[in-house]
Amino acid sequence: MTLTALCPGTFDPVTNGHVDIVRRAAGLFGRVIMAVIENPAKTPVFEVTERVEMVREAVGDLANVEVDSFSGLLVDYARSKGAAAIVKGLRAVSDFDYELQMAQMNRHLAEIETVFVPTSAKWSYLSSSLVKEVARYGGDVSSLVPENVLRRLKEKMA
Amino acid sequence: MTLTALCPGTFDPVTNGHVDIVRRAAGLFGRVIMAVIENPAKTPVFEVTERVEMVREAVGDLANVEVDSFSGLLVDYARSKGAAAIVKGLRAVSDFDYELQMAQMNRHLAEIETVFVPTSAKWSYLSSSLVKEVARYGGDVSSLVPENVLRRLKEKMA
Amino acid sequence: MTLTALCPGTFDPVTNGHVDIVRRAAGLFGRVIMAVIENPAKTPVFEVTERVEMVREAVGDLANVEVDSFSGLLVDYARSKGAAAIVKGLRAVSDFDYELQMAQMNRHLAEIETVFVPTSAKWSYLSSSLVKEVARYGGDVSSLVPENVLRRLKEKMA
Amino acid sequence: MTLTALCPGTFDPVTNGHVDIVRRAAGLFGRVIMAVIENPAKTPVFEVTERVEMVREAVGDLANVEVDSFSGLLVDYARSKGAAAIVKGLRAVSDFDYELQMAQMNRHLAEIETVFVPTSAKWSYLSSSLVKEVARYGGDVSSLVPENVLRRLKEKMA
Amino acid sequence: MTLTALCPGTFDPVTNGHVDIVRRAAGLFGRVIMAVIENPAKTPVFEVTERVEMVREAVGDLANVEVDSFSGLLVDYARSKGAAAIVKGLRAVSDFDYELQMAQMNRHLAEIETVFVPTSAKWSYLSSSLVKEVARYGGDVSSLVPENVLRRLKEKMA
Amino acid sequence: MTLTALCPGTFDPVTNGHVDIVRRAAGLFGRVIMAVIENPAKTPVFEVTERVEMVREAVGDLANVEVDSFSGLLVDYARSKGAAAIVKGLRAVSDFDYELQMAQMNRHLAEIETVFVPTSAKWSYLSSSLVKEVARYGGDVSSLVPENVLRRLKEKMA
Repeated sequence: MTLTALCPGTFDPVTNGHVDIVRRAAGLFGRVIMAVIENPAKTPVFEVTERVEMVREAVGDLANVEVDSFSGLLVDYARSKGAAAIVKGLRAVSDFDYELQMAQMNRHLAEIETVFVPTSAKWSYLSSSLVKEVARYGGDVSSLVPENVLRRLKEKMA
Repeated sequence: MTLTALCPGTFDPVTNGHVDIVRRAAGLFGRVIMAVIENPAKTPVFEVTERVEMVREAVGDLANVEVDSFSGLLVDYARSKGAAAIVKGLRAVSDFDYELQMAQMNRHLAEIETVFVPTSAKWSYLSSSLVKEVARYGGDVSSLVPENVLRRLKEKMA
Repeated sequence: MTLTALCPGTFDPVTNGHVDIVRRAAGLFGRVIMAVIENPAKTPVFEVTERVEMVREAVGDLANVEVDSFSGLLVDYARSKGAAAIVKGLRAVSDFDYELQMAQMNRHLAEIETVFVPTSAKWSYLSSSLVKEVARYGGDVSSLVPENVLRRLKEKMA
Repeated sequence: MTLTALCPGTFDPVTNGHVDIVRRAAGLFGRVIMAVIENPAKTPVFEVTERVEMVREAVGDLANVEVDSFSGLLVDYARSKGAAAIVKGLRAVSDFDYELQMAQMNRHLAEIETVFVPTSAKWSYLSSSLVKEVARYGGDVSSLVPENVLRRLKEKMA
Repeated sequence: MTLTALCPGTFDPVTNGHVDIVRRAAGLFGRVIMAVIENPAKTPVFEVTERVEMVREAVGDLANVEVDSFSGLLVDYARSKGAAAIVKGLRAVSDFDYELQMAQMNRHLAEIETVFVPTSAKWSYLSSSLVKEVARYGGDVSSLVPENVLRRLKEKMA
Repeated sequence: MTLTALCPGTFDPVTNGHVDIVRRAAGLFGRVIMAVIENPAKTPVFEVTERVEMVREAVGDLANVEVDSFSGLLVDYARSKGAAAIVKGLRAVSDFDYELQMAQMNRHLAEIETVFVPTSAKWSYLSSSLVKEVARYGGDVSSLVPENVLRRLKEKMA
């Protein structure tokens, strides 16, 4: 039984917290697809091609992880990939409430499970939006994102 | 003692979860007014007249339920209708925190009670915004909204 | 339409927060029964007869409020009284989570609604167990409970 | 890659909510062990052998699910079974807070992942302790537990 | 040991809840700076100079409180002022979740503590955004904000 | 202005999370008293004298920290020590809800502030009860408690 799991997200940009989760997912499922949402509700800072590239560079060493992007409904994309599960990182209660709603909706729309994996305690305060806010004002985010993301953030925020 | 209760909301559009709550309210209060907020903070997809019509079609079988729209402060509208209570559906903790704040503020502004009624467990993941997001991408929401809403959603999203 | 609502609780002892909720309930329903649970899970400090008496003294001025006690399932008691609703005060999120579970279970067992009414902000930190803990060590709870309860607490804790 | 996952619990008694979760786990992992905790903190109503039997009867149709019991540390038991993951059902926010703490502790003690799977919305209010409380007073729990559990509950509570 | 603490906020406008918190902070720390965030994420109703003036008028009687404004990273501003702590008022759980994330991030970026002080129960439902919403529709907010803010709100909303 | 702050707790036993909080408190207040609650609601594993000794050994290097024990009401003890504030560590939302209730009650009983300080992210899952549970079954808690506590835990659990 080799199951495929999706790790969907905007990844604007990918952080060490996301990498932590996908590494854990890669240990639990035979094949993991990091699925970059092309057009999220909020306008992203990075183009989808940039976001895909950053993810690819960050998880290139994981043999059973692929990187892709998609638009439209997550459950349609999941079906097209033959995915059995969606994997989401959980940091705090506020995450959980919204994510539980999405998980129940996705289960209603299609026969797909959502499994929640706790983020490592040391990344519990980390989010893409907080990283961008800190970087925008010149704060040091070097220990919060992969090296390639750090370089691109500096270019983008310059 | 025939009390009037308000069920306020944007209803953009009304869902089966809203209908579930107003049915319960209609069993508890002598007269219930579904009060459509004309200009909510976020730009609605449906005009206020459309939203009122959709609600009317969805709850037309309930003898003691009226449908109306209003702008301005909810407590002023409630006073003008002689309402003794505001009825709100509750799905999850995140709802509760914000709604409790509103309830305390409304009690401060006027002598009006807010009563919270739990949504049926089977609609616990349902919201107007999630319905629109799913419908926008062609997902099947036929079991989540009344039939008339389904038809209008298809037209609007086409 | 004169509906009966139940306000169930251990009331060990009744506090100003409970009285606040039952007053609000008495304004919303034709008949309200404060229903004292005889044998709660935790051993109460006051006997059920004492608890009933304290409640009676505290809400004696409310014409449409009765005081009673019961054992067994709340939904069976509610049915025997012809009650249409259970009214519960809500203070905080931790209340809500447990009470929502009970409300869904009671709706499953019988056709009875649970409505949640927010406690006045000024009683948001008040509970019977906290009152007992403070009184046990001689703290001043005179503004937190009705006068008759204060007297009995002093006797009991002496 | 055939991974083993544990579904630990007191199962006093097993409910339809537990069965829902283990069925989902059985679709995600190659081998699932329902691991009954022998001596939980609270004194159980059913002996461990009874609890194991009830679980066995309830999930006997699932080919890749085994039933076992254990005492001691969950992580030690997990290691002895070669388990890569612990699967827990999540119903509400209050579950999540405690379970997240346990998950981080178990990850600290051993290299084991905890994955959370949302319970079906229709079992969101279900727990073993609530089932026992309802059954104790003669309430109808026939749609909340497997048939064999219903029979044993009646005997035990008689 | 005379420590400096910051009370940062948009203060658009300052409310009685904010004044409550800064008074408490002034009793705990030798020097308190109310630090108005110049350009918050959402477009403020009042200019930064107006917001600073309103705060100054509201806390002018507190000898050890200064009022200032800043842009950029809070931790950089804190360092420039020699501040040892950030003080935040807490009203409800939803506040806490976000503020905890910010506190951990700020501790990561600089050696600065965040201390949370509970808002008085009677202001638990109060926020600048709710005040503005009520004032916009002519609701009475006279007991929720300082007198000078009330006057300016009326001018602005006219 | 040299203020005294209390860090109350059962400390059964003191953990690295408690030490983390008292170190932070020692940087914010002129004098800090770690106040061991003699007779907590639950029967402690360690005697009060042992708990005081363990705390003393753990924080002996902090010049402005004293260790004491007390029984009775916290606010009475605080008054006897001239304390201006109570300092509590916060890990998660469930802590917050209960602690906010206590803080409001203590403010009602006496003019004392409660300030909440976030525990370091890396101790977010740590509690005395979890430490005891792990130690009871021979789990390794050497990185979770001070060295002297580790030794005593082994003796006690042997």
